[in-house]
Amino acid sequence: MKRFLKLTIAYDGTDYVGWQVQPNGVSVQQRLEEAWLSATGEQLRITASGRTDSGVHAKGQVCSLATHSQLSNRDLVRALNALTPEDIAVLKVEDAIDGFHAIRDATEKTYGYQIQHGYIMDPLRRRECWFVTRNLDIDAMRQAATFLIGRHDFTSFQSLGAERLSAVRNVKRLDIEPHAESLRPEMTIWIAADGFLYNMVRRIVGSLVRVGRGGEQPDWVRWVLEQKDGSLSGQTAPAHGLFLDHVQYCDPSDETCGTADTD
Amino acid sequence: MKRFLKLTIAYDGTDYVGWQVQPNGVSVQQRLEEAWLSATGEQLRITASGRTDSGVHAKGQVCSLATHSQLSNRDLVRALNALTPEDIAVLKVEDAIDGFHAIRDATEKTYGYQIQHGYIMDPLRRRECWFVTRNLDIDAMRQAATFLIGRHDFTSFQSLGAERLSAVRNVKRLDIEPHAESLRPEMTIWIAADGFLYNMVRRIVGSLVRVGRGGEQPDWVRWVLEQKDGSLSGQTAPAHGLFLDHVQYCDPSDETCGTADTD
Repeated sequence: MKRFLKLTIAYDGTDYVGWQVQPNGVSVQQRLEEAWLSATGEQLRITASGRTDSGVHAKGQVCSLATHSQLSNRDLVRALNALTPEDIAVLKVEDAIDGFHAIRDATEKTYGYQIQHGYIMDPLRRRECWFVTRNLDIDAMRQAATFLIGRHDFTSFQSLGAERLSAVRNVKRLDIEPHAESLRPEMTIWIAADGFLYNMVRRIVGSLVRVGRGGEQPDWVRWVLEQKDGSLSGQTAPAHGLFLDHVQYCDPSDETCGTADTD
Repeated sequence: MKRFLKLTIAYDGTDYVGWQVQPNGVSVQQRLEEAWLSATGEQLRITASGRTDSGVHAKGQVCSLATHSQLSNRDLVRALNALTPEDIAVLKVEDAIDGFHAIRDATEKTYGYQIQHGYIMDPLRRRECWFVTRNLDIDAMRQAATFLIGRHDFTSFQSLGAERLSAVRNVKRLDIEPHAESLRPEMTIWIAADGFLYNMVRRIVGSLVRVGRGGEQPDWVRWVLEQKDGSLSGQTAPAHGLFLDHVQYCDPSDETCGTADTD
């Protein structure tokens, strides 16, 4: 009998071409599907809540699959961790409802973006933080962030190449958490939404950083948003500062559940 | 006129043979002395508070040197950071008293050792944490640690190869801090002493972990200490979990200041 499973995984995206199988390099998906094949003998497709780009990390990516394997979820966790390389970890394997689909059923995703700023970098944090060589004005960035919270057309923060039918997304959280105990000044920008356009998080981060550096006033971000023009935002922040933190799914009994797109 | 300077530096030790210049690879000292030469034209020796081994990191290593350079301390910080690779950072350059010597004048050093434990590893923390595949009993480890605090002969926690005249050291702090917000269970073992024997921190960590895994009772550590035999302790914990956090120096007006050895 076919069972639907929900996998929660973490990975260091540094050495991958991204989540999705691609001809030009090794992907997280490929490594996970290979591990699945070794563990169960099944060659199948594993679907993630969204493709993460090359270099982007995950602490709580969610995947779906349908299996005939009789292995217990606990044994699957153990086998998959033994069979994946050390930069991929399978945190949980859980039973899901019939037909569970990691993209379609997602209702909200939360990303974090880590930044070090100032004139001296903590070398031990360079792989996970974008190093911005300027003291950033966090208050100005917070003010700019307020204009992006809520339901808006985010065309201005979308990179070309993966257009959606609609660019309207509902940003439910966008806030900045300075790190209290870091060696050098650091922050995490947290962003949660019902879905993300291509590069949306990294473009929003690049725009907030432009404000934080003093290059623009906070309400410039509102102006950019209103123009619905993808050429006006700040730079696309580099991949290595970004991680997918967690993905939320609706209660299967709740028929008002929405959908989420990929970033 | 010759000025004595105190440099505070941080580095990711992963790609170095350690602090000290060696024929078999690139050291942090070499890279720093090269940067100094480029910045000032001076070829000189830079002394650190202690040699860190290959793979060991530093967040607050202290170095001393005597220079004829007229560059301001601020300009030296800027120039050295521009000239060192991105895995070395010069955090501070300060004037020191005449004759300041980073080894001889140190009174206390504090190391941190990071451990991930359990059956699943956070891949994003694998470079800085020793991954111990067992749930560790932190209470037992804390109990074991109490036997090592204070002035003792630490012969049992010394690796051969760099014997000192005396193996008596004063451990002023040895405690375990679980990380509150980590994805997977983590801890830092903090240890401060007036000096360290060769591999002393890593052997103490290996011994506490043996207790934490349930391989020995906490008072086994006291027994090991009392034997004064270097073959009895737990394993030498791997280098990549260890970092030199900071080094303390005496107030130059205080004539009771002691000395610290190297680990």
